[in-house]
Amino acid sequence: MFSVVTFGEVMMRLCPPGFAKFEQAHSLNVVYGGTEANVAVSLACFGCRTTHITRFPDHALGRSAAATLRYHGVDTSYIRYGEGRLGLYFLETGAVSRASQIIYDRYDSAFSLIKPGDVDWETVLQGADWFHWSGITPALSQNATDCLAEGIRTANRLGVTVSGDIYFRSNLWKYGKRPQDVLPELTAGCDLVLGNRQNFDELYGVKAETFEEACKGMKVIFPRIRYFTDTERQSVSASHNRLTAKIFDGTTTISSREYDITHIVDRIGGGDAYLAGLIYGMLHSDDLQFAVEFGAAASALKHTVEGDANLVSAEEVEALVGGDTSGRLRR
Amino acid sequence: MFSVVTFGEVMMRLCPPGFAKFEQAHSLNVVYGGTEANVAVSLACFGCRTTHITRFPDHALGRSAAATLRYHGVDTSYIRYGEGRLGLYFLETGAVSRASQIIYDRYDSAFSLIKPGDVDWETVLQGADWFHWSGITPALSQNATDCLAEGIRTANRLGVTVSGDIYFRSNLWKYGKRPQDVLPELTAGCDLVLGNRQNFDELYGVKAETFEEACKGMKVIFPRIRYFTDTERQSVSASHNRLTAKIFDGTTTISSREYDITHIVDRIGGGDAYLAGLIYGMLHSDDLQFAVEFGAAASALKHTVEGDANLVSAEEVEALVGGDTSGRLRR
Amino acid sequence: MFSVVTFGEVMMRLCPPGFAKFEQAHSLNVVYGGTEANVAVSLACFGCRTTHITRFPDHALGRSAAATLRYHGVDTSYIRYGEGRLGLYFLETGAVSRASQIIYDRYDSAFSLIKPGDVDWETVLQGADWFHWSGITPALSQNATDCLAEGIRTANRLGVTVSGDIYFRSNLWKYGKRPQDVLPELTAGCDLVLGNRQNFDELYGVKAETFEEACKGMKVIFPRIRYFTDTERQSVSASHNRLTAKIFDGTTTISSREYDITHIVDRIGGGDAYLAGLIYGMLHSDDLQFAVEFGAAASALKHTVEGDANLVSAEEVEALVGGDTSGRLRR
Amino acid sequence: MFSVVTFGEVMMRLCPPGFAKFEQAHSLNVVYGGTEANVAVSLACFGCRTTHITRFPDHALGRSAAATLRYHGVDTSYIRYGEGRLGLYFLETGAVSRASQIIYDRYDSAFSLIKPGDVDWETVLQGADWFHWSGITPALSQNATDCLAEGIRTANRLGVTVSGDIYFRSNLWKYGKRPQDVLPELTAGCDLVLGNRQNFDELYGVKAETFEEACKGMKVIFPRIRYFTDTERQSVSASHNRLTAKIFDGTTTISSREYDITHIVDRIGGGDAYLAGLIYGMLHSDDLQFAVEFGAAASALKHTVEGDANLVSAEEVEALVGGDTSGRLRR
Amino acid sequence: MFSVVTFGEVMMRLCPPGFAKFEQAHSLNVVYGGTEANVAVSLACFGCRTTHITRFPDHALGRSAAATLRYHGVDTSYIRYGEGRLGLYFLETGAVSRASQIIYDRYDSAFSLIKPGDVDWETVLQGADWFHWSGITPALSQNATDCLAEGIRTANRLGVTVSGDIYFRSNLWKYGKRPQDVLPELTAGCDLVLGNRQNFDELYGVKAETFEEACKGMKVIFPRIRYFTDTERQSVSASHNRLTAKIFDGTTTISSREYDITHIVDRIGGGDAYLAGLIYGMLHSDDLQFAVEFGAAASALKHTVEGDANLVSAEEVEALVGGDTSGRLRR
Amino acid sequence: MFSVVTFGEVMMRLCPPGFAKFEQAHSLNVVYGGTEANVAVSLACFGCRTTHITRFPDHALGRSAAATLRYHGVDTSYIRYGEGRLGLYFLETGAVSRASQIIYDRYDSAFSLIKPGDVDWETVLQGADWFHWSGITPALSQNATDCLAEGIRTANRLGVTVSGDIYFRSNLWKYGKRPQDVLPELTAGCDLVLGNRQNFDELYGVKAETFEEACKGMKVIFPRIRYFTDTERQSVSASHNRLTAKIFDGTTTISSREYDITHIVDRIGGGDAYLAGLIYGMLHSDDLQFAVEFGAAASALKHTVEGDANLVSAEEVEALVGGDTSGRLRR
Repeated sequence: MFSVVTFGEVMMRLCPPGFAKFEQAHSLNVVYGGTEANVAVSLACFGCRTTHITRFPDHALGRSAAATLRYHGVDTSYIRYGEGRLGLYFLETGAVSRASQIIYDRYDSAFSLIKPGDVDWETVLQGADWFHWSGITPALSQNATDCLAEGIRTANRLGVTVSGDIYFRSNLWKYGKRPQDVLPELTAGCDLVLGNRQNFDELYGVKAETFEEACKGMKVIFPRIRYFTDTERQSVSASHNRLTAKIFDGTTTISSREYDITHIVDRIGGGDAYLAGLIYGMLHSDDLQFAVEFGAAASALKHTVEGDANLVSAEEVEALVGGDTSGRLRR
Repeated sequence: MFSVVTFGEVMMRLCPPGFAKFEQAHSLNVVYGGTEANVAVSLACFGCRTTHITRFPDHALGRSAAATLRYHGVDTSYIRYGEGRLGLYFLETGAVSRASQIIYDRYDSAFSLIKPGDVDWETVLQGADWFHWSGITPALSQNATDCLAEGIRTANRLGVTVSGDIYFRSNLWKYGKRPQDVLPELTAGCDLVLGNRQNFDELYGVKAETFEEACKGMKVIFPRIRYFTDTERQSVSASHNRLTAKIFDGTTTISSREYDITHIVDRIGGGDAYLAGLIYGMLHSDDLQFAVEFGAAASALKHTVEGDANLVSAEEVEALVGGDTSGRLRR
Repeated sequence: MFSVVTFGEVMMRLCPPGFAKFEQAHSLNVVYGGTEANVAVSLACFGCRTTHITRFPDHALGRSAAATLRYHGVDTSYIRYGEGRLGLYFLETGAVSRASQIIYDRYDSAFSLIKPGDVDWETVLQGADWFHWSGITPALSQNATDCLAEGIRTANRLGVTVSGDIYFRSNLWKYGKRPQDVLPELTAGCDLVLGNRQNFDELYGVKAETFEEACKGMKVIFPRIRYFTDTERQSVSASHNRLTAKIFDGTTTISSREYDITHIVDRIGGGDAYLAGLIYGMLHSDDLQFAVEFGAAASALKHTVEGDANLVSAEEVEALVGGDTSGRLRR
Repeated sequence: MFSVVTFGEVMMRLCPPGFAKFEQAHSLNVVYGGTEANVAVSLACFGCRTTHITRFPDHALGRSAAATLRYHGVDTSYIRYGEGRLGLYFLETGAVSRASQIIYDRYDSAFSLIKPGDVDWETVLQGADWFHWSGITPALSQNATDCLAEGIRTANRLGVTVSGDIYFRSNLWKYGKRPQDVLPELTAGCDLVLGNRQNFDELYGVKAETFEEACKGMKVIFPRIRYFTDTERQSVSASHNRLTAKIFDGTTTISSREYDITHIVDRIGGGDAYLAGLIYGMLHSDDLQFAVEFGAAASALKHTVEGDANLVSAEEVEALVGGDTSGRLRR
Repeated sequence: MFSVVTFGEVMMRLCPPGFAKFEQAHSLNVVYGGTEANVAVSLACFGCRTTHITRFPDHALGRSAAATLRYHGVDTSYIRYGEGRLGLYFLETGAVSRASQIIYDRYDSAFSLIKPGDVDWETVLQGADWFHWSGITPALSQNATDCLAEGIRTANRLGVTVSGDIYFRSNLWKYGKRPQDVLPELTAGCDLVLGNRQNFDELYGVKAETFEEACKGMKVIFPRIRYFTDTERQSVSASHNRLTAKIFDGTTTISSREYDITHIVDRIGGGDAYLAGLIYGMLHSDDLQFAVEFGAAASALKHTVEGDANLVSAEEVEALVGGDTSGRLRR
Repeated sequence: MFSVVTFGEVMMRLCPPGFAKFEQAHSLNVVYGGTEANVAVSLACFGCRTTHITRFPDHALGRSAAATLRYHGVDTSYIRYGEGRLGLYFLETGAVSRASQIIYDRYDSAFSLIKPGDVDWETVLQGADWFHWSGITPALSQNATDCLAEGIRTANRLGVTVSGDIYFRSNLWKYGKRPQDVLPELTAGCDLVLGNRQNFDELYGVKAETFEEACKGMKVIFPRIRYFTDTERQSVSASHNRLTAKIFDGTTTISSREYDITHIVDRIGGGDAYLAGLIYGMLHSDDLQFAVEFGAAASALKHTVEGDANLVSAEEVEALVGGDTSGRLRR
């Protein structure tokens, strides 16, 4: 059983039922999620051993967030508790031409107060196969960034594969640093990066006409990175998307088939589901085509699951990878 | 900030959750709506100053209906309270080939007892930019019709633009008058009319081959009317409609783009949303094309909003008018 | 008013709300259904006199299941009560490429303990026009099979038309008999059979290239059978199916139009809805084309109704048979 | 199995969830009830054969009301359908010093249009043991009163015991008659009457110091009446009532024990539950003490059951009559 | 119609349904409340003209909070919108010996950013009869304190009666000031103060053996204060409280009757409900006994209403003041 | 941190919302519980390390049951999966004189198929402080009994304290053995027993006038048992119980104070909560009075928590043990 460690903030998500607008909500559905934890939960549902590291406020809501990760099979024994609030986000679900909307309320979270020394990275990463982080953590605070940097360094030293989702949410950075200031050091420790040409240009000044050329430019700066990956989402409407994924191994780009997601249930976490699927695929096979197909199929399935995390099993993904898109009733 | 006054009945709408048939409903969702009030609520959500005039029973349900209008920003200070019941309608939501169904239970409503003198039109309409009514009011009672006629006359005298939605719901008329008896006088006071060839023929004997010819025939009888407008709905199924709108200014017909509403959430009030959008567009621009596009986009968005009234903002409509139909998540 | 008798197990169905996976369910919606009872309920909604015969545990849940049938107009006065549990099934609703899933928990049900002599078939079938059974009953126990055989023999003697849905759920048979052991005797008493080439081959060794040839092969073995019918479902996805039905009268195959069910609400019981519609059509008309169209339209409508049973009225089906697929609002 | 026939209006009851006030309700729970139908449902739950006669609008809501009676075991085959609306009432549930409130919306109901000849009383009452009516019916319309009078006359002729609940809801009478005008004729056909001194005085001018004397006064006017009964409710608060019942047989008053209902769930229908229990007791025993205890215990239990009707079994009542007030868990 | 102005923060309250603990909540009920706004809402429900002043984030949730005040009849036209988050609190409802729990999450709210000059106090208070504030505002920020001080000074100048609830929530003060630093200036402008001996001692060093003596000590420091009031709550359990109130006019203490609240629905806002009732009583009568009884009865009723604010009408309070504690059903 | 191991069946509990009777339930709330697992969950909420051992069906519902234990902090890594169904029970919540009712549907559960060798007791119990079992396991099957006997023997050998709740649910035993046949061997391995005089007599023929004498009789047969404990519940009504607990150490009986639970939320699992509290108390203190008070207070609090398991913290229990029964709001 492969073992994956993830690190990042987990928020309470509050969502009006059905298609109600915020103004119509008299109750809000509660889910807990965060981009890296979503990867952990999905991998746990696939049967991997996963550990998520974060920091929660030491009250019933922080404990409930941890309990939810545990519910889905993620090891929560390294989670820290202390001062600070629980990050929140409010999600209104759109349909057709009405976009879904998110109101973030995540500043000053307990996670943003995590600092170097809070995590015993040596112990946590001992024996792990993979470590995953995202560009949201360095957006939150210097100390969280430093703690993450410790983790990446330790992973590199212990030979744990490192993946970074470097979409960096430009509107989050409020503590004085710019993405360009801190992301390069973190990116340098990655074996696999999720990003696109625009990120590579904005963050590292890599200018190129194609994804492949941009990746090659990245490799010059960050020689450790072996794989670049991304998904492409065609948004026909809020209810209907088309999705493909691709991975570039320095030489060749391997693309998944396209999924036509005609009746979206919940599109939050689609990218995280892709990464979880890709990681699963790469851990279980040397065939990059299999891995990228597994990731894309996982992401397609996520769009039919309520909540941030992809709760489908590896068997369900395999059936879809195998070509059964019929959704036929299983008795 | 433009100011719009609307007049008409507001009902409690009772709707089984989800796609349950009436026979399956053990609870009913409550919304308050009425064609003219829906216009007011939508315009309030667009940021206009709106006042709705109606008459409610003097009990908790009547007050809740008024409170709901107030919630959405409509001025309710001219609403009257007294004897009579609250009009109701029951709505069962269909899907695909199963049609939605409405059971009306609106006779003897407190609104139908409203009478001339009950509304201080002079005060209400002073300084208003627009007054809107519909063909449902004259269907309910002679006194309500007379009260409305007072309003239209006052609006005309004060130079307030008057719009009338003359769809007249033939099955409502129970008090002894026919639409043909009372609608002409009311229509004569209009600057803008929503209706179609069939209405114009049945009500006023205007026979024509095209919408434009029919409108011209109407102008002969009702010289005050400057604009004729209508929407066209292609009902692919209960879950999927296509929608366009048009306006005729006596010379030219200006049509909106067509909206493909593939996953309908709630189609009630689609026409009211169009009128609200059109009025907003005409108040804020001299460009009829803009106005009709604003109306059509507003109506398209309404189909994704639960309840009778269109709760989207002017910004959401503008984005759609601007061409963004992707429904992409807004953070 | 025609009278139809059905016989079979009724289960409690427990279903997470919306698209929640089992792991996400903190409440379960309760419906009662069973393939033969679904036929009875649908026919009752069409206005037929229907009687369902089954056996329930003698506690509040068994009585609630009976009450639900009675709610929809089915005569429950011949239902037996006694030892045994209430069969259950858990249903998770999928979407797009995520399949719906069923977990059955139906062994040792009170129904499986029903035995010859428990039903006074003579009284029940006296004056009935139609008797319907399915291949699930003989899958459950020898005594239930024997009781059913009694019913079929009585129906044959009294001249009641007999229909059998011989889909036999291979994974249910646990009491020692194989489908091939017991289905032939039951099939021999049928006037109409729902099945396909694969069933005919596996059960009776009838091998053929086409449905028609297979039916002819069946007729050689079971001369009483006058009609063979089946539906064809093209599963575009869990949210979108296409459906047709056909009936073979020994000479000609009559096919229905195809229904494009683009936004499925609940596909359980689609086949039962077809059979109910077909029976209704055959009872009310000699025109097989009408009957098969009525069945197919009924089945299409079922996909938009929550629960196992088709609760639409004969008028709703007739409107769809008449070609109105627009789902236009009915006021 | 004894057989009881009841006659009267059935309304849809709409109730905010929990203790929400009307102003706070975004959904309303649906129950169907009416004083006489509540008696029928309770007796059906006790195992009696019951038939309720009413008239419903011929639409899905009317049919749902009938289906609900059928669900609980009441024979609905004599119910008439036609023009008119479904009577409604809205119920807000209070607590402690905040009273529950009812808003009635029941005028012009389909039931109020029932008229002599609509019910084939001869058939309905043939073989029945008991016929029950209430003072609400004569409050609604002359034709409903006349239809009821037909029923009482037929019952008298066929030797069916007649009970009348003559609480007459003074604020309902709008059709021109006063209670005094029509109730005497109906009361004259009763064998048992539920009422109190105030009713007897207001309706029939019977003045007395005690219930017993008042009853004796009544007997002078209405010699047929053998039994007079009533409940006494001490309202400690909206959450806590104390309840006793008594019956006077012309000679002796027999009182039940007092029930201390400390945590009321739903007190609507408490009187109907008493009558159902009393009728059950009188049908099954000659011991008036047993009957009045059975009625009082039934009524006490009703206060713990949601909805208008008492859904407890005869066994549950018997246990309470037998003295087990512990509410101990039954496995 | 009297006019009351209130000033203070309004939070979103998120509450697990029923008695669920935080760990059990998969949805949270949404209500908006704040101690001063609760006073405004209650007075609006009593029929007073009320205006609440606060500052909300300029997004859908801030607008929903304002809309909710407007729903209940409070004038929201002076509310400011801008940067900052919406304060939140999470409430778990206890029972018997399990205490209810609150988790606050209100720092850095948009309200805490309100500053002098943001409110046009002159306009707002012109013609008002009463201005109410609480000790929570000075706990939040210096600028909010300064803005409040502006308001109190303006009220004093315009002759508007000022009341202050000086319970100061010691654990809120995080911006560098202590209650003792800022409350004296605010208290000096009050005509009526809600507080107790402990407050008076801790805040102003007033030491006394009795409430009356303490009040007299306060009057020496703050000669403007004419009335001192407080409630006394005996907490039998989380489900059962006893409540009295008293007011001291410098000479005499007038106490209300005691209310025995045996089945608490929601005790949040009980003190605010008292103040609203007291203010209503003092505005409508010179009889302090009436005012304090009205306040205590209002508070008792609040314990039966879900949410922070007391939604009962003046008539409901008057009935209870008049002695009807029976909670008898009102039809 | 003390470590406790528990062993036994976990069932899905299905419960109509509020006070609905089974006949009224259209949805059922889902909770997972079992007497021994309830002990484990409560101890985990107190902060103990707990491991529950059971056997679940290898499908989504079995995994959800395990996930729920994990959610509350119980180690589920030793749970086995395989054939068999998930045991169920249906719970209807009563009030006042209406008793709650349970319908069990637990035969042939996956747990009942657990057998010796399935659990690696040596590993599980290594380092544990306490092992708890109940009389339900031996009621289910011989193999489950044998597996439990293995566990008890191992615990005895490893010096792990063993507690047994020997209430044996006489109506469960269906596999051929009587309680008397198998319980003695299991009881012999106990250090602490929960039971009463009646159990001791029926199971082991110990006849005595008092609890203490009975315990002494037990000690003669089972010399290992050091402590005998029991709770006493006075059932005033289904809504109101009084509760005390006692423990006998062979010499002295120590009784807890009495708790007056006036507004019961959910009384299921009250005994399990007591045992968890007692075990916690005994693990953390040598003071038996403290331990029995901790247990009784925990049990009292359980009655206010929805579901089978007691989710309160050790701090909440300590506060109640410390005498604070006021249920005062905690901010």
